[in-house]
Amino acid sequence: MTVAKAVEQLLPDKNLVYFGDVARTPYGSKSAATICRYARQDTEFLLNKGAKIIIIACNTAASVASDLLKAQFPVPVFEVITPAIDKALAESASNRIGVIGTRATIKSNIYEAKIREARAEARVFSQACPLLVPLVEEGWLDKRETKMIIRRYLHPLKHKGVDTLVLGCTHYPLLKHLITPRIGRQVNVIDSSTAVAEMVKKYLQNHPEVDKALATGGESTYYVSDVTDAARVTAQRIFGRKLELIQVDVEGN
Amino acid sequence: MTVAKAVEQLLPDKNLVYFGDVARTPYGSKSAATICRYARQDTEFLLNKGAKIIIIACNTAASVASDLLKAQFPVPVFEVITPAIDKALAESASNRIGVIGTRATIKSNIYEAKIREARAEARVFSQACPLLVPLVEEGWLDKRETKMIIRRYLHPLKHKGVDTLVLGCTHYPLLKHLITPRIGRQVNVIDSSTAVAEMVKKYLQNHPEVDKALATGGESTYYVSDVTDAARVTAQRIFGRKLELIQVDVEGN
Repeated sequence: MTVAKAVEQLLPDKNLVYFGDVARTPYGSKSAATICRYARQDTEFLLNKGAKIIIIACNTAASVASDLLKAQFPVPVFEVITPAIDKALAESASNRIGVIGTRATIKSNIYEAKIREARAEARVFSQACPLLVPLVEEGWLDKRETKMIIRRYLHPLKHKGVDTLVLGCTHYPLLKHLITPRIGRQVNVIDSSTAVAEMVKKYLQNHPEVDKALATGGESTYYVSDVTDAARVTAQRIFGRKLELIQVDVEGN
Repeated sequence: MTVAKAVEQLLPDKNLVYFGDVARTPYGSKSAATICRYARQDTEFLLNKGAKIIIIACNTAASVASDLLKAQFPVPVFEVITPAIDKALAESASNRIGVIGTRATIKSNIYEAKIREARAEARVFSQACPLLVPLVEEGWLDKRETKMIIRRYLHPLKHKGVDTLVLGCTHYPLLKHLITPRIGRQVNVIDSSTAVAEMVKKYLQNHPEVDKALATGGESTYYVSDVTDAARVTAQRIFGRKLELIQVDVEGN
């Protein structure tokens, strides 16, 4: 939803179809095979709803399933990792880059591999932060325990002297106000949700044929695989208003 | 898995078929309709594997789906709620009973309703503790943050002067060593995993025809819908040894 909001802000005239797999969340603790299966079902659902561009708005799914989706579906597939890495490389002067994410994202090693592929001299320090997603989903955005847990997770990175920190999970922008002071205000904190929206905007400017094919009017539709209180509360927190969440079942796809 | 272990200890000669829906966990944050669909698929899988008795070893599924499963399937269906309530009523002298569980279990109000049905003068104080499952699954069983979060959750119950506390989630026995001193050592802490195993044992003593139909030899088989590191680690923690986890897909059921 942080990605959907960033896209709406940067491309206010385009129609957006959102699917949140609330019923099977969190992906971060699932195996690669299961995540790939879910990602394929989710994408098929969005294409059936008329999507002309896919954004994998989840670092876990992107790290595990983006090559599969790019190979299997005939539309441009964006994900949140590449744009965040591009931005991190542009902003880092010391080439010491920190990455935080779910256990699955960090274990996939994708950030380190891609950063080092682009810039061999860069050093990447990764830290899995598996409790941050449940804390965000509980709405504990300012609790003392949340601050302590963030301190515990960031402690190793702080001592590595990173000058750039990638928020490698689309939940983490909601904790940016705690993460930034803890890692140090001199550190560039990269929000992958904003980064991918900027990349899609640039892509459309360079590909007018795709841009023209997109439905316009600024309508957004939000599908979820389960309507829960937490999904409602998170939506309200991110968008600052109530969203209409439409329940659908994508398991058959 | 805490239930499987309690059953193995009390009925060491019976064969046990376990299914853990790791891929779609946690149920606690899902809607009732989704939980019912999953519970039906899970039960069908176990019956296909030859189960003659079903134990719903999850408070969330029990609170939402046990009536459905009892109505739909022709085998005895046990769940973790009734035995824990029976035990709590037997042990409480003040009739002030606390219940902790996931958001879905507490929201279902099933403990309060069933306790008051059995004993109208009882007072039930409930508290949802949604972060305890992720903390257990992370293995943060002795961290300072876990203690603080438990203190925050138990604070209201402590001030209600309960003399009995039901652990209304099968993950919570792994935190009993923190919960008991926090709520107060004079409080009876009821572990639903042990309570249901005791009830099944008693049932089999009273129903020799069912007892005889059960396969014996003391073999246990552990199926999961996803083999994750966390599932492996949790299994090892609970059983004190490595378990062979067999991956299966029950979505088609």
